Amino acid sequence: MTEFVLAPPAIASVAIAGSTERFAVRRIFCVGRNYAAHARELGNDERDPPFFFTKPADAVVDTGSEIPYPPLTSNLHHEIELVVAIGKAGFRIPREHALSHVWGYGVGIDLTRRDLQDQAKKAARPWDWSKAFDLSAPCGPLLPAAKSGHPGKGRIWLAVNGETRQEGDLAELIWPVADIVAICSEAVELQPGDLIFTGTPAGVGAVQAGDRITGGVDGIGTIEVTIGQPRA
Amino acid sequence: MTEFVLAPPAIASVAIAGSTERFAVRRIFCVGRNYAAHARELGNDERDPPFFFTKPADAVVDTGSEIPYPPLTSNLHHEIELVVAIGKAGFRIPREHALSHVWGYGVGIDLTRRDLQDQAKKAARPWDWSKAFDLSAPCGPLLPAAKSGHPGKGRIWLAVNGETRQEGDLAELIWPVADIVAICSEAVELQPGDLIFTGTPAGVGAVQAGDRITGGVDGIGTIEVTIGQPRA
Repeated sequence: MTEFVLAPPAIASVAIAGSTERFAVRRIFCVGRNYAAHARELGNDERDPPFFFTKPADAVVDTGSEIPYPPLTSNLHHEIELVVAIGKAGFRIPREHALSHVWGYGVGIDLTRRDLQDQAKKAARPWDWSKAFDLSAPCGPLLPAAKSGHPGKGRIWLAVNGETRQEGDLAELIWPVADIVAICSEAVELQPGDLIFTGTPAGVGAVQAGDRITGGVDGIGTIEVTIGQPRA
Repeated sequence: MTEFVLAPPAIASVAIAGSTERFAVRRIFCVGRNYAAHARELGNDERDPPFFFTKPADAVVDTGSEIPYPPLTSNLHHEIELVVAIGKAGFRIPREHALSHVWGYGVGIDLTRRDLQDQAKKAARPWDWSKAFDLSAPCGPLLPAAKSGHPGKGRIWLAVNGETRQEGDLAELIWPVADIVAICSEAVELQPGDLIFTGTPAGVGAVQAGDRITGGVDGIGTIEVTIGQPRA
């Protein structure tokens, strides 16, 4: 006879920098392509609207973790991102009020099963299996905006085994944080505990079992994870 | 100065039939096209593999609720589905053991912003805004499999304002429950609290503010929701 365990799941959470408390995660929203190859022209109204995808809340993983190489892929990619942590609910938030809903910031990695994403695009099918898998959202300690301010610029980078792979600057965000928060809140009512991964700069690429991934955003924080052997 | 509320979010949950306890929801997985127009040929190995998308756990809504007509759409569709509630963790579950991981069953509606889905397909972009929005996963009371057994057949239906719109039979599932559970567990490790929406039979269509949606699966249960006016 099967024994079932129906206790409520542990609430997914992310560390808070300089605190023993943790930030309870409700949902994870992610922005698609959001870095210009070069500095964007201010006031350019011809920017394509941003698009979003999601990950399950419990896909978050603390910095310092080993993440087993995930199943169903042979092309696991790193995407370093600035993460926005929402602290106040809002629906259709005006752009000029958007930053007042942001509790803090962190550095995350949007792990992507690129081969599954390519297949999904080709078939016009959902991206979920390429993005929304177990342990796919490593996220470093969150820094309250009360300490960091709301960053409009700053180097964002990622290295694999010490070799720089991704490098950019928050100033290159096609849709800056205030826009992303405002636009996301038109599709869903944002809630405390929501995280928004804001997109990745150029240089994404594959990682292998045994690789050590480090990354950071100047003034915000860092993250480090290791890719382990696949689960048997 | 902004006031933030960082208390952990309430854990999303679904009613349990005949109980005051509730089933805590961890994640929601959904299967794409999964009903044959006619009875499927047994043993047909040429079935396309099923594909999956997700909704946030807190998208669940109890039967009897009024759901405001959601934003960003003018083509909200109903999709009635058998819902599988996972009660035991498993990774790469063999098909022959899959049903032992199923705690129970319910009746759900996969609400879909069809216009956003059509746009996503056309652009080969994520389906999330068409599927993973607020209150997009109404789900009736779950019935433990210990009471219902594991249904292999049974009428599944949906009506709008009393007029039947969708009708099918679980026997028409291209990938029956055991297959869906097994295949889903190859992509993610299933956990207690996971729900799987198993796909919808023919007859999907639009609903409007003021419409009353009812649906059911013989031997499992029913669901009823009303679509309200859009939020101001």
